[in-house]
Amino acid sequence: MNILLTNDDGIYAKGLAAIFHEFSAVGDVTVVAPESEQSAVGHAISLNQPLRVRQVSMNGDILGWAVSGTPADCVKIAIAELLPRLPDLVVSGINLGPNVGINVLYSGTVSAATEASILGLRAVAFSLDTYKHADFTRAAALARQVLVGLLDWPAWTSEVCLNVNLPDLPPDKVQGVKFTRQDVGPLVEHFERRVDPRERIYYWLAEINDRQAPDLTTDFGALKAGYVSITPIHHDLTHYPSLENLLFQT
Amino acid sequence: MNILLTNDDGIYAKGLAAIFHEFSAVGDVTVVAPESEQSAVGHAISLNQPLRVRQVSMNGDILGWAVSGTPADCVKIAIAELLPRLPDLVVSGINLGPNVGINVLYSGTVSAATEASILGLRAVAFSLDTYKHADFTRAAALARQVLVGLLDWPAWTSEVCLNVNLPDLPPDKVQGVKFTRQDVGPLVEHFERRVDPRERIYYWLAEINDRQAPDLTTDFGALKAGYVSITPIHHDLTHYPSLENLLFQT
Repeated sequence: MNILLTNDDGIYAKGLAAIFHEFSAVGDVTVVAPESEQSAVGHAISLNQPLRVRQVSMNGDILGWAVSGTPADCVKIAIAELLPRLPDLVVSGINLGPNVGINVLYSGTVSAATEASILGLRAVAFSLDTYKHADFTRAAALARQVLVGLLDWPAWTSEVCLNVNLPDLPPDKVQGVKFTRQDVGPLVEHFERRVDPRERIYYWLAEINDRQAPDLTTDFGALKAGYVSITPIHHDLTHYPSLENLLFQT
Repeated sequence: MNILLTNDDGIYAKGLAAIFHEFSAVGDVTVVAPESEQSAVGHAISLNQPLRVRQVSMNGDILGWAVSGTPADCVKIAIAELLPRLPDLVVSGINLGPNVGINVLYSGTVSAATEASILGLRAVAFSLDTYKHADFTRAAALARQVLVGLLDWPAWTSEVCLNVNLPDLPPDKVQGVKFTRQDVGPLVEHFERRVDPRERIYYWLAEINDRQAPDLTTDFGALKAGYVSITPIHHDLTHYPSLENLLFQT
């Protein structure tokens, strides 16, 4: 199996290295990842500036390519220019930090997987539910176990990609796997207003993660309860009930 | 009616000015738009750098605020910090160039409207089907006509935002209005490989828009046939048929 590996934390991120080592037992892994961190870029692509590509090696072996663009750019240029053949699977991650709920829309990690499914490829995004002291080796082993279980799912066509969120827990504490929907509850955010050394005002976006009462049928709830959350994601944003309602009215 | 106006072409774009003038007859319009062009940023938000905000006036009147961020940033900070009260409507555009099909995922214009609906507000994105010699005055008049027709639609809650694409045609050539689904046909793209003056290689993404046989039930098809296309868009990316299939298997 040929695997294209990308991420949004950049080609030198530990989460990517951990997946590279673990998934090399499953198939031939080629990395095409952003040169620099691209968190929260969403499904951005580069139109106003060209892309640069640099071959990257590790221990003398060719690891892949670093791209001066976004995760979606990486997938596009990998398929169009860099890979000798289409991959059987595109993997994005492991992201440092969860990608659940509304944050799925902001996530470069998930957008790389979505881009792959737009291009007709099976794709999966992995994110880890911690922002610090991440044990990516443990997470990559869990990711591999999840992936192997999913590969035989017959309905996994390129119509959907899979958004997998991993709890940051030792194997015996992981509660199991839940197939979930994206939580659509509002984020609790605010802007911190600060003053710089030149007495000019600036704002930092801050999220307050104090939401309670997790619903186990959502990505957010399942992850908080210690489950691996797997959400099938697609790229048709049409809200069909509203469309039917509009068509009925006219 | 209080209207928040934003876009992705930047606060000095002609499409925004045209909407500002035309929609000032419908309500009180406040502009909060990106300081610089933000095309194809998708649903990117700024986490790694703070936002700067600058008040902008035109002819001595306060027009609004320019924000050093993305369209989604503009909507977030407008609601959280800049506006004295919640707007009744968020308008994004008019974008120079259509936002149909897969390009909806890359569009900063549409993402601003999506962000507004995440925040619980009614929102509409307008895009014009041309890349040059755009008659934004004509397009804004058409946009206003479309908007007034939509305001009474009872099912237009914040669950959906509306992605409106306007044909670049005089009023008597516009074929009418179609409620459409997002086209999911693949883009025909390639990368142009070039060599810079220092003999280094770079790549430009290029789209080949030669698709035929428009399907009038899609945004792409309706727009190409001269209709105003209106697509209800939502921010739950879950593919429910796949989720049911996965839950059934386990």
